[in-house]
Amino acid sequence: MELLASERKASRLDTEQITNLIYGGREMVKRKREIENAVASDPNLDNSYYHYQTTEERFSEAVRKFTYSITKKMPQLKISGPVESHLFRRAVESTNPYALQIIMFIPTIRGQCTQEQKDKWLPLALNYDILGCYAQTEMGHGTFVRGLETTATYDPERQEFDIHSPTLTSTKWWPGGMGVIATHAIVPARLITKGEDKGIHNFIVQLRSLENHKALNGITIGDIGPKFGYDEADNGYLRFDHVRIPRDNLLMRYSQVLPDGTYVHPKSEKLSYGTMVYVRSTLAYSSFDWLSRAVTIAIRYSIVRRQTQNKPGELETQLLDYVNQQYTLIPLLSSAYALYFISQYMLRLYTKSQSHLAQDNIESLPELHATSSGVKSIATSMALKGIESCRLSCGGHGYSLSSGFPYIFYQAAPSVTYEGDNTVLLLQTAHYLVKMRQRVLENPNTSLPDNLTYLSNQRGYSRPISLDFLSTRDQLIMYEGMARSSVDRALAKLRDGARKGNDRFDARNGAAIELTQCAEAHTYYVIVKSFIESVEGREVRSMISHNQTILQSLSNVFSLHYMLSRSGSFLECGVLHSTDLVELRRVLMSLLEQVRPEAVALVDAFDIPDIILRSVLGRKDGDVYRAMWEWVELNPRNKHRFGVHPVYRKYTKQLLKSSL
Amino acid sequence: MELLASERKASRLDTEQITNLIYGGREMVKRKREIENAVASDPNLDNSYYHYQTTEERFSEAVRKFTYSITKKMPQLKISGPVESHLFRRAVESTNPYALQIIMFIPTIRGQCTQEQKDKWLPLALNYDILGCYAQTEMGHGTFVRGLETTATYDPERQEFDIHSPTLTSTKWWPGGMGVIATHAIVPARLITKGEDKGIHNFIVQLRSLENHKALNGITIGDIGPKFGYDEADNGYLRFDHVRIPRDNLLMRYSQVLPDGTYVHPKSEKLSYGTMVYVRSTLAYSSFDWLSRAVTIAIRYSIVRRQTQNKPGELETQLLDYVNQQYTLIPLLSSAYALYFISQYMLRLYTKSQSHLAQDNIESLPELHATSSGVKSIATSMALKGIESCRLSCGGHGYSLSSGFPYIFYQAAPSVTYEGDNTVLLLQTAHYLVKMRQRVLENPNTSLPDNLTYLSNQRGYSRPISLDFLSTRDQLIMYEGMARSSVDRALAKLRDGARKGNDRFDARNGAAIELTQCAEAHTYYVIVKSFIESVEGREVRSMISHNQTILQSLSNVFSLHYMLSRSGSFLECGVLHSTDLVELRRVLMSLLEQVRPEAVALVDAFDIPDIILRSVLGRKDGDVYRAMWEWVELNPRNKHRFGVHPVYRKYTKQLLKSSL
Repeated sequence: MELLASERKASRLDTEQITNLIYGGREMVKRKREIENAVASDPNLDNSYYHYQTTEERFSEAVRKFTYSITKKMPQLKISGPVESHLFRRAVESTNPYALQIIMFIPTIRGQCTQEQKDKWLPLALNYDILGCYAQTEMGHGTFVRGLETTATYDPERQEFDIHSPTLTSTKWWPGGMGVIATHAIVPARLITKGEDKGIHNFIVQLRSLENHKALNGITIGDIGPKFGYDEADNGYLRFDHVRIPRDNLLMRYSQVLPDGTYVHPKSEKLSYGTMVYVRSTLAYSSFDWLSRAVTIAIRYSIVRRQTQNKPGELETQLLDYVNQQYTLIPLLSSAYALYFISQYMLRLYTKSQSHLAQDNIESLPELHATSSGVKSIATSMALKGIESCRLSCGGHGYSLSSGFPYIFYQAAPSVTYEGDNTVLLLQTAHYLVKMRQRVLENPNTSLPDNLTYLSNQRGYSRPISLDFLSTRDQLIMYEGMARSSVDRALAKLRDGARKGNDRFDARNGAAIELTQCAEAHTYYVIVKSFIESVEGREVRSMISHNQTILQSLSNVFSLHYMLSRSGSFLECGVLHSTDLVELRRVLMSLLEQVRPEAVALVDAFDIPDIILRSVLGRKDGDVYRAMWEWVELNPRNKHRFGVHPVYRKYTKQLLKSSL
Repeated sequence: MELLASERKASRLDTEQITNLIYGGREMVKRKREIENAVASDPNLDNSYYHYQTTEERFSEAVRKFTYSITKKMPQLKISGPVESHLFRRAVESTNPYALQIIMFIPTIRGQCTQEQKDKWLPLALNYDILGCYAQTEMGHGTFVRGLETTATYDPERQEFDIHSPTLTSTKWWPGGMGVIATHAIVPARLITKGEDKGIHNFIVQLRSLENHKALNGITIGDIGPKFGYDEADNGYLRFDHVRIPRDNLLMRYSQVLPDGTYVHPKSEKLSYGTMVYVRSTLAYSSFDWLSRAVTIAIRYSIVRRQTQNKPGELETQLLDYVNQQYTLIPLLSSAYALYFISQYMLRLYTKSQSHLAQDNIESLPELHATSSGVKSIATSMALKGIESCRLSCGGHGYSLSSGFPYIFYQAAPSVTYEGDNTVLLLQTAHYLVKMRQRVLENPNTSLPDNLTYLSNQRGYSRPISLDFLSTRDQLIMYEGMARSSVDRALAKLRDGARKGNDRFDARNGAAIELTQCAEAHTYYVIVKSFIESVEGREVRSMISHNQTILQSLSNVFSLHYMLSRSGSFLECGVLHSTDLVELRRVLMSLLEQVRPEAVALVDAFDIPDIILRSVLGRKDGDVYRAMWEWVELNPRNKHRFGVHPVYRKYTKQLLKSSL
C-alpha cells in the first residue's frame, strides 16, 4: 500500500492533465467519474462476484443488468450520446448483450436504408420495441464476404424475397445477440432476381415473435455454445428454410429491386465503407482500453510485489526495479499511449472522410481503407500480445481469474479475427502500398497522401549521418527507409512471380510474406508518426504542459523498442548499421530509467477504477494480499458443511478406504 | 472429408514409423491405442460434454473419473509403469486431481526420506491410504524459494516441530490437490532450531482427518478459486496456527535435526536437484504434447477450410495453400518436432546425471541445471506462443471452446511460470554461460561440456565463405557464432557495470537484457543441435528410414525460420550479411513448399486421437461442419421450452414491452 503511495508522492507529473486529455476534457472526466461512482454504488450492478460465476450466470446477469440499465439506470443518470453511453457500459460490463442493437443494427439502418425505411425501422429499434443483430458470418465463410451462401431470391408475383440456407455451411454462425436475444436481424445474403445473382445485399428479417419470443416458422436458431470468453454474449446460429420477407426489407439506399424484379445498381460499392472504417477505428480505441487495463494491473503489482533479497540486510527487490520487468512493461506502457494517439488519429481521418463522402467524394477512401485495415490489424495484435505479456510478468498470480488478466485477454482475443482477419487486412494494406509505389515509380509527380509521401523519395534512404536516436526526425527517416525498402522488396517479389508466368493470385501468394511485412512496416511507421506528431503538436501540448517531457520519452521508447526488436529489418535496408545497436540499447535503457519513476503516475492517468479492473493485483490502493484473502472468502467451493467438499463423500472416500 | 483423405493418399511418408519413434516402438504404440480405445469406449470416462461443463462440474467429474480409474479401470487394463500411466491419464483428462500424489509427493518421499521414513510413508501413499500434495509456494513467494516465510521451530522438550504461518503473505497459495483433496502435504518451511534459522527444509504435515476429511486443528485450508484453466485442479491455500508434528516428519535423508535440536548439515545442497531437473525435462515433453495437439488441429482444419475464390471457375483456396498460413504453421510443425527431440535429449541427460549422482559425482550438475533451466523456459514459451498462433490461424472458429484450442492454451499457460519463472530461469542459464566464457578466456585449455565448446573458439566466428543454408554444418556455425557473440555482449555489459562501481546485483541487473538474450541464443542453439543430431544420428535413422528426408526438411525449417525471425542477432555479429537475407527467404520458402504436401501426414504421425483433441476443427475424419452442428445440439442453452431462454421472461420481455 505504502509502496504505491510513495511512488505517487515522488511523481512530478500532473496526471489529471493526462486523464483530461484521454477522456476529452475536465468536464467529461467529471462526468465519467460520476457515472462510475453511480455504477459502483448500485447493488443492482454489483460485479464483485463476477469471476466466480458460471458462463450461464454471467450471461443471465448481463441480460439482467442491461435490462435494468436501459429501462432504469441510464434514464436516471441521464446518460446521453455515444460517449456517455460507452462510459456507462464500460463501467457495468464490457459486453452488453444488447450491444449489437447499438453498434451494428441501428448504424446499418441509418447508413443503408432509404428515408422511408428509416422512418419505419429506426423508431422501433431506438425504443427497443425490436432487438436487432447483424447476421453476416456463416459456418463456412467469414472474412471472404463475397463467398456467403445464404440466398434471397426475389419473387415478383408476391413481391417478396425468399431467404434460404441452401447448405450446412451457409448456416449463419457467430453473430452476437442472435443466439437468445434478437427479434430481428440484418442478413447479408446473395440477392437473386430474374435468375441473376447480384451479389451480397442486406435484408431485414424477423427471427422471433414479438409476442412470445418463439422462433418464427422456417427459422432454426440457437446459441453456438461457450467460447474462450465473451460469456455475456449469445453468439448464435441461424438457418432459413424459405423464409418470406417483403420486398422493401431489402436495405435500398444504394441498390434497389423494383417490384417487377428489375435490379438498380448502386452508384458506388465504396459508399458503404463508412461503417466499417468507423468500427475499425473504435477497435484501435478498444485496443488502447484493453492494453491500458492490463498495463495498469501489471505496473501496480510490480511495485507492490517483491522478489529475491539481492542485497544483504535490504528488503527484497520490487519487481519493477528489475530491468527485465522494465523492458517488458515500459514499452507496453508506451504502446498503450501509442494506441490512444492512433485511435484519435483514426477518428479524425474517419470524420474527414465522412465529410468527403457527404459530397460524394470518394477519393480519400482507398487510403482510408488501407490505413484503417493496417491499424486495425496491428493495434489488435499489439494489444493481445501485450496483455499476455503483462499477465506473464506477474508470475503465478497472473493465472488466477482474480488477477483480472484472463478477463481482459478474453475480451481482446477475438478482435484479431472479427471485423476482418488480421492477416487478410494486412494484405489489403500491402496491395495498396505496392500499387502506390508502382504509380510513383512510373510517374514521380504522382501526388500521394501525407503518410505515403516517403514512397516518392527518389534518392532512397540511408543512415542519418550523425544519427541521434532521440531525434524524432531521425527516427522517422529510419522508419520511412525501412518501410520503403519493405515495400520495394514486396514489389520485387511480385514482379519476380509475374516474370515466372504466375497468374495474379499465384504471384501475390508467392509474395505474401513480403506483402504482410511491408504492411506491418508501414503501419508501425504511421503509428510512430502519429505518436510523435501528437506529442509535439500544439493541441496536445497545450493540454499537457506539465507532462510533455514524459510523453516524449514514451514516444521514444515506443519507436526505439520496436526498432530494436525488429533490428533485422532496419539493418537489412541499411538505415541502421550493426555497430549502432550498442548505442540503441544504451539509449533505450536510459529511457526506461527515466520512465520508471513515473510508471505508476502514467497508469494512474488512465483513470481506470477498480470496478472495471476487477483485479486483486491491480487495485488502486495496492492492498494486494488482503484482497487475495477476501477473494477466496467468496469462493463457494470453500463453503461446504464442515469445510468438506462433496467430492470427498461421493468419490475420494472410496479411494482412501479402498485398501482397507 | 475427402480433402484430408486425398492428402493422406498423396503422402509418401510412412507415418507409422514416426509414431513408433515418438512413443517408443511398435509395441508401445499398440498398447497406447489399446488404452485410448478402452477409454474412448467406456461411458464412465466419456468426455464429449466437457466444453459445456462449468468449472465445478469439471472438477467434480475429474475426481469421479480418476477415483473410478484408480480403483477400477487402471487395474482392469493392467496399467503399469509411468509411461502407461501417463498414456492412460492423457486419454482420460490431462489434469488428474490426484496427480500431485504421483508427480510430487511420492517422488519427494523417495528422494528425500531416510529408509526408515520411506518404510513408513511410501506404502501409505502408494496405496492411496493418504493423499499428498506439495505445499511450497506462498502468497508472497514463488520462484524465490529462500524467501518462504512459513516456520518450523523445533521444540526439544516435546521433540516436535511447531509449524506456523507468521504473516498473511506466508499463506501457502497455489499448491494443486490441496484445496479440497489432500490429507497430507510436504511443506517447505524455515527450519529453526536452537534459535537459529537453518533455511528451507521439507516436512510432512497432515492436513485433514483420515476419518472424515475435516481440516485438523490449527489448519485453515481451502481452494483459491477459478483460474485461466485447470478447472480440474483444486489449487489451494493453507495457513498453520502452531501445528505440531513429530521430529521425524522432517525429511531427513540429507539434513537432520537430532532429538536435542542439533542440526546436521547436508553433504551438498545440490543433491536434491534431481527431481527438479526431471520435472523440467518432462515439461519439454509436455510442451511437445500441447503444441503437437494445436498443430494437428490447425493443419487439418487448414486443409478442410476454404477461403476466397482466387481463380475464376475454381473452388475457393484451401487455407494451407496460402503462403502466409504455411509460414505460420509449418515452422510450428517443425517446432513440435524440435520439442520432441529436445525432450528426449533432456531425458537422456537426466538419466546420465542420475548415474553420476548415484556415485556422489556432482560435476555435471551445473551444466544440467543451466541446460534444463534454459530448455524449460524456451520450450514452454515456444509452445504457448505456438498454440496461440495455431488458434489465430483458424480464424473465428478458433475462439470457440469447441475448437479445442482454449483447452490446450489453458493447459500450457501456467507452465511458463511454474517450476521456475521463465525469465528467472533464463538468467540462471546466462550466469552459467558467462561464467564458463570467462573461465575459457582466462584459461583457453578449460574443458567444456559438449554444448559449450563453441565458447572456447578463439578465432571467433565469421560468415561461412560459401554459405549454404541447407548445410547443417553451416547452420550450426552460424548459431554458435550468434550465441557466442550474445554471451560476449552480456559479459561486456557486466564488466561495464562492474567498472562503474556497481555491486554484483546492480551489474547483473544492468545487463539483464543481454543476459536473457544470450541464454535464449544458447538454448536455441542447443535445440537446433539436438534436432540436427537426432535426425542425422544412427539411432533415429534406423527407425525412420522412409522419413528421414522430410525430418531433415523440418529440421532446416526450424533452424532457418528462427534465423530469419531473429535476423538482427545474426546480422549484428556478422555471421550473416544483409545481402544473404534474400537467399535465406528463398530457401525457407522452398522448404515450406516441400513440407506442405506432407503436412497432414506429419501431424497424423503424432497419433493424437479425437478423444484427446476434443476439437470439432481438428478431428481426424475432417468432417468439421457436421461436427459443429452436433456440438450446438449439445448446448443446454438451446434446450429450453419452446426454444425460449428464461432470460426472455425474466428480463428481455420488460425491455421489449417497456415503451408499450
